[in-house]
Amino acid sequence: MGYNKTMLDSKNNLKTFFNPRSIAIVGVTEKEGKVGNVVAKNILNIGYGGEVFLVNPKHKELFGRRCYSSLEEINEKVDLAIIIIPAKFVNNTIKNAADKVKNFAIISAGFSEMGEKGKKRENELAKLAEKNNLNILGPNCLGFINPKIKLNASFAGGMPEMGNIALISQSGALAVGFMDAAEKEGIKFSNLISIGNKARINETDLIKYFSGDESTKAIAVYIEGIKNGREFMKITEKVSAKKPIIILKAGKTEKARKAIVSHTGALAGSSEIINAVFEKAGILRADNLENFFDLIKLASNSSISKNKEAIIITNAGGPGVLTADAFGGKEIKLAKIGDKTKKELKSFLPDESSVENPIDLLGDAQEDRYKKTLKIASQENAGMIICVLTPQDQTPCEKIAHEIIDFKNKTGKTTITVFIGGKKIIKALDILRENNIPNFSFPEKAVKVLDKYYKWSACDASALIQKEKINKERQEKTLDIIEKAKAENRDALLFSEAKEIMDLYGISVVKAVNLDSRRSLSAGLADGNDIEGTENSIDKEKNGIIANENDMEVKFPVAVKVDSDKILHKTDRQGVILNIKNQEELKVAIGKMEDSFPGENIIIQPMLEIQTELILGIKKDAVFGPIIVCGLGGIYTEIFKTVEFFIPPMNTEKIKKRLAKSKLGFLFKETRGQKSYNIENLAGIILKLAQLAIEIREIKEFDINPLLIYNNGKETKAVDIKIII
Amino acid sequence: MGYNKTMLDSKNNLKTFFNPRSIAIVGVTEKEGKVGNVVAKNILNIGYGGEVFLVNPKHKELFGRRCYSSLEEINEKVDLAIIIIPAKFVNNTIKNAADKVKNFAIISAGFSEMGEKGKKRENELAKLAEKNNLNILGPNCLGFINPKIKLNASFAGGMPEMGNIALISQSGALAVGFMDAAEKEGIKFSNLISIGNKARINETDLIKYFSGDESTKAIAVYIEGIKNGREFMKITEKVSAKKPIIILKAGKTEKARKAIVSHTGALAGSSEIINAVFEKAGILRADNLENFFDLIKLASNSSISKNKEAIIITNAGGPGVLTADAFGGKEIKLAKIGDKTKKELKSFLPDESSVENPIDLLGDAQEDRYKKTLKIASQENAGMIICVLTPQDQTPCEKIAHEIIDFKNKTGKTTITVFIGGKKIIKALDILRENNIPNFSFPEKAVKVLDKYYKWSACDASALIQKEKINKERQEKTLDIIEKAKAENRDALLFSEAKEIMDLYGISVVKAVNLDSRRSLSAGLADGNDIEGTENSIDKEKNGIIANENDMEVKFPVAVKVDSDKILHKTDRQGVILNIKNQEELKVAIGKMEDSFPGENIIIQPMLEIQTELILGIKKDAVFGPIIVCGLGGIYTEIFKTVEFFIPPMNTEKIKKRLAKSKLGFLFKETRGQKSYNIENLAGIILKLAQLAIEIREIKEFDINPLLIYNNGKETKAVDIKIII
Repeated sequence: MGYNKTMLDSKNNLKTFFNPRSIAIVGVTEKEGKVGNVVAKNILNIGYGGEVFLVNPKHKELFGRRCYSSLEEINEKVDLAIIIIPAKFVNNTIKNAADKVKNFAIISAGFSEMGEKGKKRENELAKLAEKNNLNILGPNCLGFINPKIKLNASFAGGMPEMGNIALISQSGALAVGFMDAAEKEGIKFSNLISIGNKARINETDLIKYFSGDESTKAIAVYIEGIKNGREFMKITEKVSAKKPIIILKAGKTEKARKAIVSHTGALAGSSEIINAVFEKAGILRADNLENFFDLIKLASNSSISKNKEAIIITNAGGPGVLTADAFGGKEIKLAKIGDKTKKELKSFLPDESSVENPIDLLGDAQEDRYKKTLKIASQENAGMIICVLTPQDQTPCEKIAHEIIDFKNKTGKTTITVFIGGKKIIKALDILRENNIPNFSFPEKAVKVLDKYYKWSACDASALIQKEKINKERQEKTLDIIEKAKAENRDALLFSEAKEIMDLYGISVVKAVNLDSRRSLSAGLADGNDIEGTENSIDKEKNGIIANENDMEVKFPVAVKVDSDKILHKTDRQGVILNIKNQEELKVAIGKMEDSFPGENIIIQPMLEIQTELILGIKKDAVFGPIIVCGLGGIYTEIFKTVEFFIPPMNTEKIKKRLAKSKLGFLFKETRGQKSYNIENLAGIILKLAQLAIEIREIKEFDINPLLIYNNGKETKAVDIKIII
Repeated sequence: MGYNKTMLDSKNNLKTFFNPRSIAIVGVTEKEGKVGNVVAKNILNIGYGGEVFLVNPKHKELFGRRCYSSLEEINEKVDLAIIIIPAKFVNNTIKNAADKVKNFAIISAGFSEMGEKGKKRENELAKLAEKNNLNILGPNCLGFINPKIKLNASFAGGMPEMGNIALISQSGALAVGFMDAAEKEGIKFSNLISIGNKARINETDLIKYFSGDESTKAIAVYIEGIKNGREFMKITEKVSAKKPIIILKAGKTEKARKAIVSHTGALAGSSEIINAVFEKAGILRADNLENFFDLIKLASNSSISKNKEAIIITNAGGPGVLTADAFGGKEIKLAKIGDKTKKELKSFLPDESSVENPIDLLGDAQEDRYKKTLKIASQENAGMIICVLTPQDQTPCEKIAHEIIDFKNKTGKTTITVFIGGKKIIKALDILRENNIPNFSFPEKAVKVLDKYYKWSACDASALIQKEKINKERQEKTLDIIEKAKAENRDALLFSEAKEIMDLYGISVVKAVNLDSRRSLSAGLADGNDIEGTENSIDKEKNGIIANENDMEVKFPVAVKVDSDKILHKTDRQGVILNIKNQEELKVAIGKMEDSFPGENIIIQPMLEIQTELILGIKKDAVFGPIIVCGLGGIYTEIFKTVEFFIPPMNTEKIKKRLAKSKLGFLFKETRGQKSYNIENLAGIILKLAQLAIEIREIKEFDINPLLIYNNGKETKAVDIKIII
């Protein structure tokens, strides 16, 4: 949309936006139920202490206050204007006031969400904002709420308690439901913001702003789409190093996407790419709305341990087992209880208790059993304590809650509860909530959020940030090759061109001989029919070597392939003949190719030993730019989708880490007596592709398929290379 | 434990057990807080109308009632005795009363959960029960609650409302928490039963009993272990055809299991087997405790549509999108709204609304918009309606709830709500609950349970039941082979023996020649050193055929393998040499084998073309008996674990269905120009293995690895066969 990101960022005057000393409300009305009425009341009646100006040209007075005919009429400083007028008047109103007011929250709908006319209107608005360097929230949003200054600049009712979560929502309706539900869950907000159509201020701007907001401990974002993915990645990487960003991204289920030519491109679903981006940036991705709530609840109420071990203390056998079950496949682990601790526990717990983890205090446990057990367990290294309880006969739920609170306050360990029940635990839950102990009504969700939050805390934030480097010389040489092909009206490079680029980037490619050059070598024969006689003798002389060009020797068995920008799916179109064992077969194969693809270039490659085939490529994501895709190749590529994504820029260490953790990780372990493959080597190739992707934005799609890798010391080789420009 | 299942089943007198006209409480006390006190009060004070006898030899009177010294002293009929005395007295008490009383609920702990002594005690108890044909619940249980007759025969407090869910729990503590939580979720019970140690009555008995209980609509079970798996499968298959069985099985995360020799055995985790068993039996498996609650809530309050399409109606954009997202990967689908319906909706909804699915009524929707939309949407075929709501400014939540209730009552469609919020929706939730509309606080869990419940309803219950058939002749012949090997003190069969069995079952095996028999063929040569000369000439004569035995020809290339019960992991021990191309190599290979495995049998097999390798086997599960395992073979077997389980007895149709739906399903589809494999053929082989597994219980482990299958018309062949006896 051509709006100048840098200017908005450099100003960073969002502090005034969200903490205005004066507000003008444009479109105030006394008509009950109208948005202009609700917003005015929210600002005037809930406790906001700044100056408020009402604007409505049809009135002189509203709510017993002076009413201005326009923003320009106000002689005092206006930090923020809230716009609640019909869409068709919005742009003009802003234009006229752009010298006076720099911050606008546009609640009015009727923009890009409403057809072509609306889109045009929003474009104009964005240009207006850019030209005048305006901060604009919305349009088509709910507004925002800043509990710290008791400012409800929205048409949602109420004023949540002040807290430490900044909630940014692309859905106003969700924010409203969230706010209502948050109270009973003990979630409190530093700010709630509905971002609407994001004509100017988007999620990235707000994440950046709240990273510097002291009262915000964690940033929670609900988004349906991400604007300017590269900028988003740059900012979130930095912010994640300071505080957790929790994102619920809607739109996981994809509708049909446009046809993609490259193989790796088709392997990359947008949800997997989001996963890769979020992981790289250290973002906590919520699986679903419930998980989003749970993550926010935990972040709002608790710090997270850097020790990955947890102890479960329970008065209920079954729920204890279920909590332990939930650790399956998680990074956090059940602690092994030390012998000293076990002995001390046994000294006072009944015989039937279990002093293994979960520690089972039995159904008749009173608060003293919890108290003593918590105290003794605190000598273990485990950083997390999960207290499980069901309200059994005479279980003193509230007293136990107090013991848990005491323990948390004394030890500072990450302490959460899983109290399971209804009426019998209501009071205990109130006590826990008031004391910032998050309770989860089911064990599995508790363990899930602990695990996610732990992963964020354990990831080395400083290692997240990578910078792009450009090799100018290599870039220019590569661009020359591409320009030449473009000049010939080709959308794809020939094998020889692709190989040249691979040489520049240091990726080894299997040798190939052009049929044409071979012909000229073969004593100037003019057409294929005459090749036979002469060639046989040449080949025999050369002892099985069928061609020798630029020091490359190609021996049987060989493959014959058509090499043309017009035939991109060679295999599907029978443009590849493999396993050609002798001259006779070669002759037949070349004949077939020339029949099928008259006039097209044909290449001959040696057949290499296959140990493991990979498929490697560059996918150009519409949001996040180039992404390196690496997967297992061969017949099961589509079936198992053993694919991993790498977001440039990255360094070798990060690539290696990700490879080792990925579904391809098995290649780099000794398994069943099989040697491991060279992770350093593959990481190096991925890094080279990442550099290619960064340096040559002109490449639309890129595939190496297959890349042959070996665990017997042989050199890795790219076989087929497809470069779409 | 040697207890006679048939007798308990045939009596099926559990009706009296759970609906007793008279109860004796053994171990009553007036001491507050004691279990014997709590149980007595629960039975005496909450409304149970039957006769109650108190038993305690130390008292003449308790609670103002006569107190008996023993069960025998009571002259009247006692339908049920509840035992709450120290463990050491329990067995004697029951023994003495066994002529008089047939039903016992033993609440006392101190049995198999408490070391060797307790285990012995429980064994005695089980024998006692068997001998006297007693029904015994527990020991070490909470008791049970039957709301219909207001009988709380447990030490949990309270009396839940009467309803339609039979809850069977192996954890008393979980049942207590569940009962407390159920109230706010609108879950009501026909019965709540804590089964404790299951010395006599187990989950299968209760599932069978409640299948015939008219007030029970769905049976919910929490179990940690399953007793008598074959019986469990037989009963649950039948019951599932009538009503849903919802099971939460704890213990998903497995500890180390005992070493397993067969490859397929190692591929089968117990959780996957449970999945296969439950799927076969039509059981709804809960993913976790929350999902268990949710499934029960849905089953308790709603019927389920047999039409798999759903319509979402929402007043909140974001939550609508999230609900739609949740359909990804599910069997239920979002309905495509018909043009007529769309037109009708457009006629009264605001322009900004969406009439696609989700139908978005916008944030200012009042009840009339829900009402009209529901009415118009009801003309669509979709069987399920999901009403999503967040409490926005002036959203009339209660009125909307009433419209939804009206709609459900009129149309009978499966109707659920996803109201997201806190205080603002409390009243609406009360109204929904009172009218049996289940509300789920998050979209994803709502869609998840709808999907699971739908799958149960859609599965053809009558098709679930399969009978075992035995082919006596084949069985005897096979047993003869096994007996012979056992007589020779072997734990594994030789290849020739395994092949004989495969012939009996009609599974085609690749030919093989014994080195010994080849030697005798080769003109009576006595030892390996002298083979060379003579053999070469024989072979040359035979034009590349290296051996001919019983009409089998083996041509180069061949494989040489050691064939011995002592070398079970041939490959790991270098007992296999592949790709032998000529006599020279063969000689070397045989020499190597004879050096490595002196005196062992050696076989020669032709190398077959490999298209796809499968691995097939029989795993003997400790609980469920023999299970057929079928997976993708070759190098990626362990890595991708593309394995499917088949529980005999099955028929070909069911095997085909399961294969097609499984991770192996890709083999039976045309993909990327690849022909499909023959599903009929593979299903036939699995069926044959299932019959082998049923007929020959003596087989401990069984592997075919690989089974070579082709999509080019070639015959499927088993290559290596491992049979452990």
